[in-house]
Amino acid sequence: AGFVAMDDITHRRFNPLTGRWVLVSPGRTRRPWHGGQEPPPVPAAVAHDPLCDLCPGNLRAGGERNPSYSGTYVFTNDFPALRPDPVRPAALLVAPPADPPVAPSADPAPVWPAGPGSGLLRSEPARGTCRVVCFGPRHDRGLVDMTPAEVRAVVDTWAAQEEELSRTWRWVQVFENRGTAMGASNPHPHGQIWACDALPDEPAAEDARQREHFARSGSSLLMDYAEIETAAGERVILAEEHWLVVVPFWALWPFETLLLPRHPVDRLAALSDDQRDGLSRLLGRLLTGYDALFDHPFPFSMGWHGAPGPHPAPGPRPGPELGSEPEPESGLGPDLDPGWGPGDPPAAFWQLHAHFYPPLLRSPTIRKHQVGYEMLADVQRDLTPEAAADRLRAVMAPVAANRT
Amino acid sequence: AGFVAMDDITHRRFNPLTGRWVLVSPGRTRRPWHGGQEPPPVPAAVAHDPLCDLCPGNLRAGGERNPSYSGTYVFTNDFPALRPDPVRPAALLVAPPADPPVAPSADPAPVWPAGPGSGLLRSEPARGTCRVVCFGPRHDRGLVDMTPAEVRAVVDTWAAQEEELSRTWRWVQVFENRGTAMGASNPHPHGQIWACDALPDEPAAEDARQREHFARSGSSLLMDYAEIETAAGERVILAEEHWLVVVPFWALWPFETLLLPRHPVDRLAALSDDQRDGLSRLLGRLLTGYDALFDHPFPFSMGWHGAPGPHPAPGPRPGPELGSEPEPESGLGPDLDPGWGPGDPPAAFWQLHAHFYPPLLRSPTIRKHQVGYEMLADVQRDLTPEAAADRLRAVMAPVAANRT
Ligand SMILES: O=P(O)(O)O[C@H]1O[C@H](CO)[C@@H](O)[C@H](O)[C@H]1O
Ligand SMILES: O=P(O)(O)O[C@H]1O[C@H](CO)[C@@H](O)[C@H](O)[C@H]1O
Repeated sequence: AGFVAMDDITHRRFNPLTGRWVLVSPGRTRRPWHGGQEPPPVPAAVAHDPLCDLCPGNLRAGGERNPSYSGTYVFTNDFPALRPDPVRPAALLVAPPADPPVAPSADPAPVWPAGPGSGLLRSEPARGTCRVVCFGPRHDRGLVDMTPAEVRAVVDTWAAQEEELSRTWRWVQVFENRGTAMGASNPHPHGQIWACDALPDEPAAEDARQREHFARSGSSLLMDYAEIETAAGERVILAEEHWLVVVPFWALWPFETLLLPRHPVDRLAALSDDQRDGLSRLLGRLLTGYDALFDHPFPFSMGWHGAPGPHPAPGPRPGPELGSEPEPESGLGPDLDPGWGPGDPPAAFWQLHAHFYPPLLRSPTIRKHQVGYEMLADVQRDLTPEAAADRLRAVMAPVAANRT
Repeated sequence: AGFVAMDDITHRRFNPLTGRWVLVSPGRTRRPWHGGQEPPPVPAAVAHDPLCDLCPGNLRAGGERNPSYSGTYVFTNDFPALRPDPVRPAALLVAPPADPPVAPSADPAPVWPAGPGSGLLRSEPARGTCRVVCFGPRHDRGLVDMTPAEVRAVVDTWAAQEEELSRTWRWVQVFENRGTAMGASNPHPHGQIWACDALPDEPAAEDARQREHFARSGSSLLMDYAEIETAAGERVILAEEHWLVVVPFWALWPFETLLLPRHPVDRLAALSDDQRDGLSRLLGRLLTGYDALFDHPFPFSMGWHGAPGPHPAPGPRPGPELGSEPEPESGLGPDLDPGWGPGDPPAAFWQLHAHFYPPLLRSPTIRKHQVGYEMLADVQRDLTPEAAADRLRAVMAPVAANRT
């Protein structure tokens, strides 16, 4: 008895951004592990790989050739999960389905199932686009290896893409999957942008909860949270003039972090020049620290959440998509609120932020699996966010001294 | 244009059990895959492994010795994620934390953070227990290899455990992680049961939505759904007198299935003798079919969802937990509704069911990764549930002929 720290108590923590809980079971990493091992990441060894879909000058699987680009390079995914016209091009049709579940229609607008089951079998067409963002021409130099100026070019590309795509699409998801453990299908340093006409589940939850907090307290949820974390200190990993990186109180992945501007900003495109420079330096520190943790390239998925874009304005649309994608029809109802438009004041309740979700737990080859109990009941973690923050701070410190 | 089938349209589907959406992007499996490969599963080759923590007669990492059991064998996890007393035993404390984030207390009941941040830093102690269920003594014979009578013994063990643990705990999660791809840390055929005093997120969502449907329509959500699926047929994999297996309309994992009784049953313990026999045969067919799909042991997480148990009754508690775990304190408020108790009529809105979440997509070594976009926006699948059902039906058929 006597002192009881959170580090010694199994507990649940609440994520105020999503409304979900996480089960925290400190000390469970002591159990023996005879399970699967991740293949240790093999860093790319060549500057240009003639077989890589993303290297400059190469022919892609989709049949197009990359230009001899030297900075960032953005193109529409050859196998996109979302298209401006949701109907798959005829060229890709294998065979007409034997028993079409949808009524035939002369019009490409599909008829969705209705009738007795309509309440339980709900679906809606999804329109959007998917782009690939090559961070640079070098096959072997990721964000972590780049100079602040090169990272700044990536930040500017993210912001410009978000600005452009938000004119047409309600949600623009900028993200990177790094490493085979996170499903990356090509080691060439790149991120992706998927944009769509619906507000997906995760940002919809964050949108609702930030609005709610603002309605209740008159302040921004994440600005209030940043203040609490800055005062407490124990979960702060990096703090600079413009940016803060914490292991959030409700972190789910062992070394998850949340990166946010210290002043109100609702989206990437609204970042000032100074904020972008600060971010470029900060990303270098964070990623170098992550790689130092297990002395190996650290796999993760990361991505940006900013205020949802406006519904497409009525009237003539902006120019065509990259490549030859046809223009989307607006299928959005008038009941959804408009989000922001170019020139609009920032959404006071929405704070831009990035999530980093790295799966590793104990070593370059032992990850946390969010499986059985986690899929069926509550997600779960095996060390406290405070313990993870201690370890991350320890590897960030020398980097900070070197890089700033 | 002309015929437009759902198989040719990118769309989102709604999961009425959880309230979440899934993005369906048919045809995306055609993209080239240069990403990670799962290690092909290596089936256990020995009947008894002297180094296995679960084989009969062996000494476990926690220091206890397994009996020479011959049927199923249940014990409390040596490294449990949940304990009846949430405070970690002193023996496991490494060192007192340098700067305890929780106020000191003479009482082991922790003081949780309060003050300005209390609205955003919410947590609560979590009490419960974790058990391991060895399906049988043989290291090399899983559920899929067992006779219906042996599977029946596992079903009876699940039901008896659920009945017993529900007397003390609000939620009892019976599950199995099969294969290293699903984080199983030991190949000996076994499942787990985690029980806890809170209703976790996933069953809480299912509870709320089943209630809502019942309040609105006077009928059970999953019974209504079973009727729709039986009539439609296209997503049905197996149908027997007492049980139905479908690829649910809103399936997230490529070959996900939902298994449910065809008549109202709210929990495992309420299954009749006939229903248990039917389930034992059905599980054999389903698992044999899964393994036939890629001609390899099929990894998955599976688990049961039934009506939440009652809050612990006031007054004297049932006997101590397995082993020497101390008895839990009731920390449950009076505002939560009581769930079912032994002898109560079944909850009309809750239908027992099992989820099977298998990750493989294209082969024994290529899985679907729910990563970047999926973690940050909407979960996503690359083939329609109907296409997955076609493929599963094709491999189930010969099995059905052999085994029934
Ligand atoms: O209990 P095991 O098999 O050692 O561990 C596995 O299942 C648990 C419950 O789903 C998870 O928390 C672990 O991440 C996973 O590796
Ligand atoms: O687009 P990639 O890198 O080929 O694929 C990866 O990222 C996608 C977006 O998160 C996921 O849908 C895929 O499962 C994953 O393997």
